[in-house]
Amino acid sequence: MHFTAETSSNGVVERDFTVGEVPGVLFSPESGSELAPLVLMAHGGGQHKRAPGIVGRAHRFVTGCGFHVAAIDAPGHGGRPRTAADEQHIAALRQAQAAGEPLGPHVVRIHIDLAERAVPEWQATLDALQQLPQIGAEGPVGFWGIMQGTGIGVPLTAVEPRITAAVFGCLGQESLTEAAARITVPIEFLVQWDDEHIDRRSGLALFDAFASKEKTLHANAGGHGEVPGFEVDSAARFFARHLGGTAPA
Amino acid sequence: MHFTAETSSNGVVERDFTVGEVPGVLFSPESGSELAPLVLMAHGGGQHKRAPGIVGRAHRFVTGCGFHVAAIDAPGHGGRPRTAADEQHIAALRQAQAAGEPLGPHVVRIHIDLAERAVPEWQATLDALQQLPQIGAEGPVGFWGIMQGTGIGVPLTAVEPRITAAVFGCLGQESLTEAAARITVPIEFLVQWDDEHIDRRSGLALFDAFASKEKTLHANAGGHGEVPGFEVDSAARFFARHLGGTAPA
Repeated sequence: MHFTAETSSNGVVERDFTVGEVPGVLFSPESGSELAPLVLMAHGGGQHKRAPGIVGRAHRFVTGCGFHVAAIDAPGHGGRPRTAADEQHIAALRQAQAAGEPLGPHVVRIHIDLAERAVPEWQATLDALQQLPQIGAEGPVGFWGIMQGTGIGVPLTAVEPRITAAVFGCLGQESLTEAAARITVPIEFLVQWDDEHIDRRSGLALFDAFASKEKTLHANAGGHGEVPGFEVDSAARFFARHLGGTAPA
Repeated sequence: MHFTAETSSNGVVERDFTVGEVPGVLFSPESGSELAPLVLMAHGGGQHKRAPGIVGRAHRFVTGCGFHVAAIDAPGHGGRPRTAADEQHIAALRQAQAAGEPLGPHVVRIHIDLAERAVPEWQATLDALQQLPQIGAEGPVGFWGIMQGTGIGVPLTAVEPRITAAVFGCLGQESLTEAAARITVPIEFLVQWDDEHIDRRSGLALFDAFASKEKTLHANAGGHGEVPGFEVDSAARFFARHLGGTAPA
């Protein structure tokens, strides 16, 4: 793990890092040298580790709860090179979009392909992060990722026992059912009730598939991109409940 | 409106009152003489205005948010006399229970009958409460009621423009669909995902029926009586967002 840059603003230290070829950013409390829980945060499709939603949510988790938050670029995202398969996926998605065809089948293939590469990358990133003294090998770890972040996060959480609480949502794919059924940690799951891309029934079916004894579905009126701002604090409280740390006021 | 008794504990003043024949209790901040929002709180079937869930939630709303909370006994509940119809409903319900038959059809009839009487009672109670200087005629009003509280609260909120935010849930009845479709105020709606009495699909259908632009469904793993404790604070934050007042820490 190499740290390549450090900036600080509003009580949050942001440190750029690389683990192998994967670039990431670690958001931490400015004042904190003590052990604190870690939340892994996965961005959406076509976005990157510093997308506004990621940075805003990470800052809220750091300043509101005292957490560390780590975000990495997904394969083929941010500044990362695209494989021939990535390019084909994107071309097929654009073609379907232009033709007004359903995007779902393309998105499923993209997520399956991405998850195969991203799961070991997240695991290597977590290995490296846990060697930092302010995170530690025994500290609690959460995962936050909706949309493509769920496409990657569900397979990751199914095989990664260090993740003990996760927020997913805005996605419903039968290809994820089997992995979801292996997950037993507490889950908060978002559904946009009027989602123009994701049939709400598929989201409800994915929520149903989790084997978790404690799981909560938050369904909000509105379209795919209209997740209400108050769900940021709800996720922070969910993680504070399960990982420790302060709940935001 | 007649106040008949007053006690005070843990920062909450409880004042018993009657409006006509209806007995109620008003929970208020001990320190508060200033205007504060009011939440009307309806108890579940077979319960009463001082059921532990009502008192616990009311105290949390008063101390956490500075609200006033008013609870009244539903017709035939608490110390209130039962009509011949009430007795018949209860006998039919017990018979069905003993025979292992579905309770749903009986519950629907009970709620329809109760709501006819309870809606004007809640409106008269609200008229009286709004004459108190610390509540006032212009102050914001919310409604909280799940199970039977939803069976009464949905018809009430549909006809009562003074209610500007409501928490409902743990019920799904086609008989409520029409009233729900007339409701446009913000709604938080609870579903118990593994409810042994209420088919989750009927709860989802009732949530879907609300015309509200802002509505949030909270579905939690667990049976009918297992609504998680953290939903109390979630409801408090929902009301603080829409009625004003402080959100609980």
